[in-house]
Amino acid sequence: MEKGLIQLYTGNGKGKTTSAIGQAIRALAHDLKVGMVFFHKDFDRWKGGEIVVLENLGIKIERYAEDHPFFSKDVSKEEVREECLKGLEYIRKVFREDKFDVLVLDEIIISVRDGFLKEEELLDLLEEKPKDMEVILTGRGASEKLIEKADLVTENKEVKHPFNEGVRSREGIEY
Amino acid sequence: MEKGLIQLYTGNGKGKTTSAIGQAIRALAHDLKVGMVFFHKDFDRWKGGEIVVLENLGIKIERYAEDHPFFSKDVSKEEVREECLKGLEYIRKVFREDKFDVLVLDEIIISVRDGFLKEEELLDLLEEKPKDMEVILTGRGASEKLIEKADLVTENKEVKHPFNEGVRSREGIEY
Repeated sequence: MEKGLIQLYTGNGKGKTTSAIGQAIRALAHDLKVGMVFFHKDFDRWKGGEIVVLENLGIKIERYAEDHPFFSKDVSKEEVREECLKGLEYIRKVFREDKFDVLVLDEIIISVRDGFLKEEELLDLLEEKPKDMEVILTGRGASEKLIEKADLVTENKEVKHPFNEGVRSREGIEY
Repeated sequence: MEKGLIQLYTGNGKGKTTSAIGQAIRALAHDLKVGMVFFHKDFDRWKGGEIVVLENLGIKIERYAEDHPFFSKDVSKEEVREECLKGLEYIRKVFREDKFDVLVLDEIIISVRDGFLKEEELLDLLEEKPKDMEVILTGRGASEKLIEKADLVTENKEVKHPFNEGVRSREGIEY
């Protein structure tokens, strides 16, 4: 594989996580080793979902900070930060061991946007990325410095969304 | 499943097809029946790729108009139109039989944009969509009428792309 890039999917539109999943499937189909780290994704909502399919396909999955104070009153900001830091430690280990060809960091942008991680903590970590590893970050609200750091940036922009018209989140489609 | 929507992913950025693939995986993980129709995707380039993984997972895949005059001198516009019309016939059959919960029509927007299909042909077809089927269209350059027809529209906007700086298309990442 050629030089790995830092890809970033941000914006308020649909398709950031699904895009990362599609990218993971594509890489897997080409016999690349793929890891995915999910931040702030509720395990209970997800366990029956795509995570199982992805794991069965041989993608190594880790989850951190499954609770987010926005959705759960039972978790403090400090606890979420602790979890996110554990996530960073795992990613650092993956980088050192050069473990995957493609590594997805789903919603890690949110960890920074919502103040659980400092921007510099993520930027410093990305400095340690092995040259041949493709890293894909997702999450709305990417900072200018993160956009500057990334090689390939796509904004998923909401043009039209039916939730604004009262259609609610649907199993198998939105989650 | 609740009322199925028409989703549309357009724009010049990365992540439209991968997003549709991720959506297909998510739906599959929730035991929904999924079909994908690819337009203008070169079979030779794809056969070792994600199509096999997706088919093995139980997604029904069809391909039409694999050649595009832009990439191949051996195919005429008329031939491509014929192929696209066959694709429409297949989709019409799928609609009539209410065969899937989720149907992806990858790059069908390109078929219209490049004049192989008339805008009205696609719009008329979408009128026949069963109420409970989710249909996902992808391709850059969606017309205003198609955007109007869709319920959920995301623009994948290129913010930064390294190909502009000479990084070439990479196996397992771009295709």
